[in-house]
Amino acid sequence: MAESRFGMTELDDLPEDLRERIGEIARKSGFVPNIFRALGRRPAELRAFLDYHDALMDRPEGLTKAERELVVVATSAANNCLYCIVAHGAILRIRSKDPHLSDQVAANPWQVRLDERGRAITDLALALARTPERFGDADISAARSAGLTDDEIWDVGAITALFAASNRLAHLFALQPNPEFYLMGRDLA
Amino acid sequence: MAESRFGMTELDDLPEDLRERIGEIARKSGFVPNIFRALGRRPAELRAFLDYHDALMDRPEGLTKAERELVVVATSAANNCLYCIVAHGAILRIRSKDPHLSDQVAANPWQVRLDERGRAITDLALALARTPERFGDADISAARSAGLTDDEIWDVGAITALFAASNRLAHLFALQPNPEFYLMGRDLA
Amino acid sequence: MAESRFGMTELDDLPEDLRERIGEIARKSGFVPNIFRALGRRPAELRAFLDYHDALMDRPEGLTKAERELVVVATSAANNCLYCIVAHGAILRIRSKDPHLSDQVAANPWQVRLDERGRAITDLALALARTPERFGDADISAARSAGLTDDEIWDVGAITALFAASNRLAHLFALQPNPEFYLMGRDLA
Amino acid sequence: MAESRFGMTELDDLPEDLRERIGEIARKSGFVPNIFRALGRRPAELRAFLDYHDALMDRPEGLTKAERELVVVATSAANNCLYCIVAHGAILRIRSKDPHLSDQVAANPWQVRLDERGRAITDLALALARTPERFGDADISAARSAGLTDDEIWDVGAITALFAASNRLAHLFALQPNPEFYLMGRDLA
Amino acid sequence: MAESRFGMTELDDLPEDLRERIGEIARKSGFVPNIFRALGRRPAELRAFLDYHDALMDRPEGLTKAERELVVVATSAANNCLYCIVAHGAILRIRSKDPHLSDQVAANPWQVRLDERGRAITDLALALARTPERFGDADISAARSAGLTDDEIWDVGAITALFAASNRLAHLFALQPNPEFYLMGRDLA
Amino acid sequence: MAESRFGMTELDDLPEDLRERIGEIARKSGFVPNIFRALGRRPAELRAFLDYHDALMDRPEGLTKAERELVVVATSAANNCLYCIVAHGAILRIRSKDPHLSDQVAANPWQVRLDERGRAITDLALALARTPERFGDADISAARSAGLTDDEIWDVGAITALFAASNRLAHLFALQPNPEFYLMGRDLA
Repeated sequence: MAESRFGMTELDDLPEDLRERIGEIARKSGFVPNIFRALGRRPAELRAFLDYHDALMDRPEGLTKAERELVVVATSAANNCLYCIVAHGAILRIRSKDPHLSDQVAANPWQVRLDERGRAITDLALALARTPERFGDADISAARSAGLTDDEIWDVGAITALFAASNRLAHLFALQPNPEFYLMGRDLA
Repeated sequence: MAESRFGMTELDDLPEDLRERIGEIARKSGFVPNIFRALGRRPAELRAFLDYHDALMDRPEGLTKAERELVVVATSAANNCLYCIVAHGAILRIRSKDPHLSDQVAANPWQVRLDERGRAITDLALALARTPERFGDADISAARSAGLTDDEIWDVGAITALFAASNRLAHLFALQPNPEFYLMGRDLA
Repeated sequence: MAESRFGMTELDDLPEDLRERIGEIARKSGFVPNIFRALGRRPAELRAFLDYHDALMDRPEGLTKAERELVVVATSAANNCLYCIVAHGAILRIRSKDPHLSDQVAANPWQVRLDERGRAITDLALALARTPERFGDADISAARSAGLTDDEIWDVGAITALFAASNRLAHLFALQPNPEFYLMGRDLA
Repeated sequence: MAESRFGMTELDDLPEDLRERIGEIARKSGFVPNIFRALGRRPAELRAFLDYHDALMDRPEGLTKAERELVVVATSAANNCLYCIVAHGAILRIRSKDPHLSDQVAANPWQVRLDERGRAITDLALALARTPERFGDADISAARSAGLTDDEIWDVGAITALFAASNRLAHLFALQPNPEFYLMGRDLA
Repeated sequence: MAESRFGMTELDDLPEDLRERIGEIARKSGFVPNIFRALGRRPAELRAFLDYHDALMDRPEGLTKAERELVVVATSAANNCLYCIVAHGAILRIRSKDPHLSDQVAANPWQVRLDERGRAITDLALALARTPERFGDADISAARSAGLTDDEIWDVGAITALFAASNRLAHLFALQPNPEFYLMGRDLA
Repeated sequence: MAESRFGMTELDDLPEDLRERIGEIARKSGFVPNIFRALGRRPAELRAFLDYHDALMDRPEGLTKAERELVVVATSAANNCLYCIVAHGAILRIRSKDPHLSDQVAANPWQVRLDERGRAITDLALALARTPERFGDADISAARSAGLTDDEIWDVGAITALFAASNRLAHLFALQPNPEFYLMGRDLA
């Protein structure tokens, strides 16, 4: 089974800046996540994608790191995106220090049991992810009632938007998760 | 009526590089498109968004400029995104030199009459835009049967992905189109 | 590209009463709207359709003329009917004296910004247009809470019903709008 | 339980021409079908509705009477319209001389067992009734392959369109069927 | 037209315990309901199905017999299951002593007019039947607000679950109702 | 967080036959699966459910054990049922000897990569699980074309039906998986 529909580009074949940047990620996680190998066929797009990802996911203010990954796993589950569910499920396990949360969110993001803030974040993300044409003031009001600030609402919405793109790239590529992701963060007890 | 749910950032309040870059766009079109003023609240995200947009929309190979805009208007219509339909509808009128095509695509992207290549591009984009969870080999095969190369399929898919994000940002912001867009390109006869 | 799947009947080939009646419309607008040429193949149906249309759209009491066209454009947008969106979009621009409203309603009738009364009219129409099987007391109550009288609710519902039929006829015929409609009412500023 | 949300108009309170016309129907069936009493509040609309109905349902060429009622029951079932299912279910039992067909079509119009021609008529009607935005050349081709002429396709489409309107009027009125309809045509064996 | 896609097993060909058990049902109703003849091909499954059915439908506490059949007809209608609508429609007519209720529920379970308790039972059942992935605390709260006890909620949910299975078996078999069911309970006036 | 909405019944509080039967399962797996503790409140229903489960899942002929679990995980994923995805995901890992298959099926049963027979089994199950009203001869023909016998088709359909019920019971109970299930079968490499 091919890992990606349009082939893979290995680290050594990337332009220098990307080789260093992806290499740094590979050093931390022990492997090159397949999304980077798949996008490597077009370095300009990979570079912009990474920049956009980092601007949203490494932002110091706003949502916590675990909350950002909650948005990612919930919307990826709603889009049935294998790669993102498995890869970001691993990251959510680590960030949340909860070995079961990712599987729970992935199975049913609409009904997974979360505290009020987590529920509000997830509901906002799901509404924008799956029925953008109906998204409106009612969704924003519900989020504000649960205590989310406008900056946090922007975070939820923008991460949902970014992964609306990522999920579709993974579907376009029929991208398979690296085997390592499946087990990461499961042994936290 | 507010132009954007979270306020607007004017050209003069942007970092230098963005002021120049957006300023260049404003000089060409005669106004600053509202999406840039809305995203200006977070310069790092605006910068990455622009980079990603340019990597995909200004790419010299692959789909023609008009075909790229066809993907944008079709998927934005399927997502009922007012800002993108009106703004990119204007660009599609100009790029296609057809004053009616945008309104036709916007009204019904699934059934708009196009030649075989245009139909294949649009069908591929719509499948990925609205039912990503069902997107698969059948969609890819149909595109190839219509003569699309893998590079063109990537173009269609990646532009669809980018505008899955853009549409959701516009919905998040309840972004209104600049009034100028409504009439642009209508007097081509 | 054929204007209609089953051919067109010209004014001169219609029975006398219809030739006069459609002729009068043609004199006012400068052209024969394609829906009449398409329906002309069956004069009895065209005659009944015109009678039903006039009974509802020219009724002196109840909704304003602009509100009636708002119902038409909103439900035609929800049904993705090219002919009705473009033709009645033109009429709505003229009736509402707003050159942008039609494109806004057509892009996203569920979220277009309207005043409370306009929103109530549109919500009622959309509910009946797209999910008739769920339409019920809750929709009626919401309309009444926004101040609509029973007579106005009937207007909204009956116009929605008429255009549920019209939209399907246009889809049946793959009916193309007359080119003149695209620009009508855009230069009102 | 009210028979109609906006009240009923009795035969004696209708204008003369309608009193005679509906009276004739009442004489044949033994009662005044509730749809006429509900629409009687607005005689001009009732008159046009009757004209449109007769133009389509009493047309001597094209589909048989039973086939016309098949289209009505199938699309009314797809729209979950109580009044039309029960009232036209009775007529279909009589026209088809089959006491079970109406209940079968009403329960599941998509899978009810029919001969090839009946299946083609029903599929065409259902496509236009429930997903008009996707209706197109593929539906027309399938109907033609099953032997339907353009005139018969028009019949199916136009009856579907008329009952898209009728179903919505019945939903608007929360219209209840006359009790007599439930048993009519059940004792044909 | 075959009564079942995979053939029928007659009473005499069933194991002794099933022959007696089904025979008892046949004596009461005057015929062997087709579901038992279809399932007879696999006696172990038929036996377990009957046990599960009896445990839920003949339970002395909780919902009334008519309310249990209301759940069955409503969810079978929502699943467009011909066999269950016709067979249990007959039983509901008898249990409710209302010759029209079954046809009303079958036509539109979402909007059929019921008293508050009947409405709450039906809404709960429909939510679980058609959108199980969204079923949650809100549905349970609404049922409790209408006065349903936890035991009654369990009844509604478990009967909905059982007929989620039954409906799918009938669809799998393309099972036709026995002709007798169509008329049972219609002459109660 | 409660494990089940309506409480749990422990092994010691079950009738003797169920205590032994569930006890045997507990001895094998090391814990009492929560579904049995939740259903224990009504022993007659638990007993019938177990009988039906065993008749279908332990049947010696037809589908392999791994194929039966594939049907369960695929349809439970399509129904977003947390308990069944996690519990039967564990069993599928063990039966298939593939530590990643369950997560892949759970993420996207429609597009998970399987061999032709696995794909045919899964497609048949998904069609019946989510759109029973459209299930028909086309689905059966596709399964037969892929080589499935009528007996295997029955297996797929009947297991899909059983888990249509199980999934709804788990949703009704808001049933949480035993923690042990999350890790079972992941260390097979």
